Amino acid sequence: MTTTRQTCLDLDTRDALASLRDEFQLPEGVIYLDGNSLGVLPKATPARIAKVVREEWGRDLIRSWNTAGWVDLSQRIGNKIAWLVGASENELIVGDSTSVNLYKALCAAVELVKADAPRRKLIVSERSNFPTDLYIAESVARTHGFELKLIEAEDLATHLNEQLAVLMLTHVNYRTGRMHNMAQVTQEAHAAGALVLWDLAHSAGAVPVDLKMADADFAVGCGYKYLNGGPGAPAFVWAHPRHTARMDRDQLRQPLSGWFGHKAPFEFTPDYRPALGIQRFACGTPPVLSMSALDCGVDVFLKAEALGGMAALRRKSLALTALFTELVETRCADHGLTLVTPREPASRGSQVSFAHEHGYAIMQALIARGVIGDFRAGEPGAAPESSHLLRFGFTPLYTRFAEVWDAIEHLRQVLTSGEWREARFNQRAAVT
Amino acid sequence: MTTTRQTCLDLDTRDALASLRDEFQLPEGVIYLDGNSLGVLPKATPARIAKVVREEWGRDLIRSWNTAGWVDLSQRIGNKIAWLVGASENELIVGDSTSVNLYKALCAAVELVKADAPRRKLIVSERSNFPTDLYIAESVARTHGFELKLIEAEDLATHLNEQLAVLMLTHVNYRTGRMHNMAQVTQEAHAAGALVLWDLAHSAGAVPVDLKMADADFAVGCGYKYLNGGPGAPAFVWAHPRHTARMDRDQLRQPLSGWFGHKAPFEFTPDYRPALGIQRFACGTPPVLSMSALDCGVDVFLKAEALGGMAALRRKSLALTALFTELVETRCADHGLTLVTPREPASRGSQVSFAHEHGYAIMQALIARGVIGDFRAGEPGAAPESSHLLRFGFTPLYTRFAEVWDAIEHLRQVLTSGEWREARFNQRAAVT
Repeated sequence: MTTTRQTCLDLDTRDALASLRDEFQLPEGVIYLDGNSLGVLPKATPARIAKVVREEWGRDLIRSWNTAGWVDLSQRIGNKIAWLVGASENELIVGDSTSVNLYKALCAAVELVKADAPRRKLIVSERSNFPTDLYIAESVARTHGFELKLIEAEDLATHLNEQLAVLMLTHVNYRTGRMHNMAQVTQEAHAAGALVLWDLAHSAGAVPVDLKMADADFAVGCGYKYLNGGPGAPAFVWAHPRHTARMDRDQLRQPLSGWFGHKAPFEFTPDYRPALGIQRFACGTPPVLSMSALDCGVDVFLKAEALGGMAALRRKSLALTALFTELVETRCADHGLTLVTPREPASRGSQVSFAHEHGYAIMQALIARGVIGDFRAGEPGAAPESSHLLRFGFTPLYTRFAEVWDAIEHLRQVLTSGEWREARFNQRAAVT
Repeated sequence: MTTTRQTCLDLDTRDALASLRDEFQLPEGVIYLDGNSLGVLPKATPARIAKVVREEWGRDLIRSWNTAGWVDLSQRIGNKIAWLVGASENELIVGDSTSVNLYKALCAAVELVKADAPRRKLIVSERSNFPTDLYIAESVARTHGFELKLIEAEDLATHLNEQLAVLMLTHVNYRTGRMHNMAQVTQEAHAAGALVLWDLAHSAGAVPVDLKMADADFAVGCGYKYLNGGPGAPAFVWAHPRHTARMDRDQLRQPLSGWFGHKAPFEFTPDYRPALGIQRFACGTPPVLSMSALDCGVDVFLKAEALGGMAALRRKSLALTALFTELVETRCADHGLTLVTPREPASRGSQVSFAHEHGYAIMQALIARGVIGDFRAGEPGAAPESSHLLRFGFTPLYTRFAEVWDAIEHLRQVLTSGEWREARFNQRAAVT
């Protein structure tokens, strides 16, 4: 049976998660398929932020560190994120950017390897990993006398050997949406004697993640994508408790040893004594306004839990991405779009990417019509996954099936009319 | 002539900066002498933050990286702070916490020394420096094979020798309010062949600072104290252009090499190529909400500039701190309060601290009366500057002379009535 707009409307009617869209303030006249770059505004956020600004800061001032609980906001939000990624209470903490947290976690991993297996000197990651991860890894490798080796995903098995110190991967690739099998990769890396650090930037809140079940070693993730924490929202870091316990025991440290990671920050002692557990991964005073917005974003998932939680969100996400793929391939065929996201559900996250040599102009034309996705440049003429990509993110918390239909209809019109050839080439920052 | 409340009211009437208080939303019934811990709320901030949340984020979403200028917010705010501390355009950048920025700057300084004078292995700081600075320095020393030596300020001269790599000082001491002569200390350290890193946490916006005239090497500073950027506001980092130019030339790096410090972050190349100049000290995606609040805080100084700028603010600050000291010593004499802040104007910042063995209880009693200062614990029985301190911060942007009178009157009543003996011992977080 052919899929029609009515089919999509029926899917929305039957969607058990449909009510969650009411938690968000989506702009008029926009189909937003870029929640994997910047999540939308939860309705609760403006009032919360106004309260933080006018009452907690403006009225109560310094007292709010206690009375409003600013002092443990990092841990409180961390605990709300923990259940989304299979971590336990007080194992995950929020603060700083993803890049900074990656630095902390990778340095900690390297310290552990130095202590245990000093001959292992290789940090391996994917060439197609998000660049900031590679820049940070390059820096850590340089400082610690390690080597950073960038490989293709399909060559991973050949690098799981006695040289490998840390395998640093992003769970869901920011370009292609390809998802690693976290449990299997972790197991294989462990079998080779290495530690594994996962970047959950495109996973947390988008797909089920179970760090403990996968027996992962370290993880970081982003607050401003699927967690809807607002522009530049602080990120999170998790370490397996076996590692934090070990760090406690052996005095191993992460290098950003700021006062919020001290055992007793308000004793103001000149010597650093790291807090126990994940708290030692905190550093400076956290940005309370941005933290509070993230808190609101994460709170929406508590409402989602009552409706089936991440399992239900995942079912809807897969239905959305499957529908989008089907409709591109049926209704926009013969326009040079090549799917680069895996068809296999277990191998993709919550986005769909298509390669097209004129991807930039096509995305500009879509944006002019109010369909906001993302363009990711590549090398024209390269294999599809390495060439120019149109990237569409689907956020099961708020994306509707009918929007998928309508987005495709816009895409079809852009392609058939050739209006993309006139699309204005505005340079646009693309903050994934 | 004896100072009376009327004298203070007259000072307020004649205060050319008095109108600046209207830029702030001060809470009713409070005399706030803790702006050196958390600055008050500028009146412009709530509307600006509401606009950032509802319009820039909520309505315009990802487009705001360009249309609202999020992408260069770090540099735009940095340029507004630069003139307050004697830096030039595009030399100072905002983002991350003070601790994280200190790590970047100290690592950069250490890299420079390694290249130029590899036998210098000593980082020197004051034992009474703010602890997070010492924790970070301890970490940098450990990673790079340096030694961190903590000294007393009066012993500084004996440590300016051929061992010294980096002298890391806070310009105004967070406990005593004692201020270093930045130009002189820098000159002496340079004469000894060392680099100097200044922490301006209690200086920026409080006292005139001229980094270029002092020929300083690196500086960091805090956004949430005298700059009124809100709780946990991002911090700033500055490097002398001779060092950033050198880093450009010799490929020297600061280790937190995130994508916002990349030469072309939106090219998404796997290899790190640092941006030129101070931009290379940027790291991850900045927290836009907290950044925007800091932007409002810094804007107030543009209005202060028309009224005489930092020179006029300094005159008022010194008048406030002198008045406070005079009134404590005349109206609260014989109650065991010992001044630890230098009487010499050139040697103090914008705060006054008194030692008292029951400082905690006295401050609790003051806070119960709506006079908010800070308590900093010390060692009872130690020299006054190392024992329990009552700390009072004066922000010339908004503190009135009559408030100084009224605060002293409360202090006098607390001391004479003995009500501090009944003060409730609430544990209170103290985020300096």
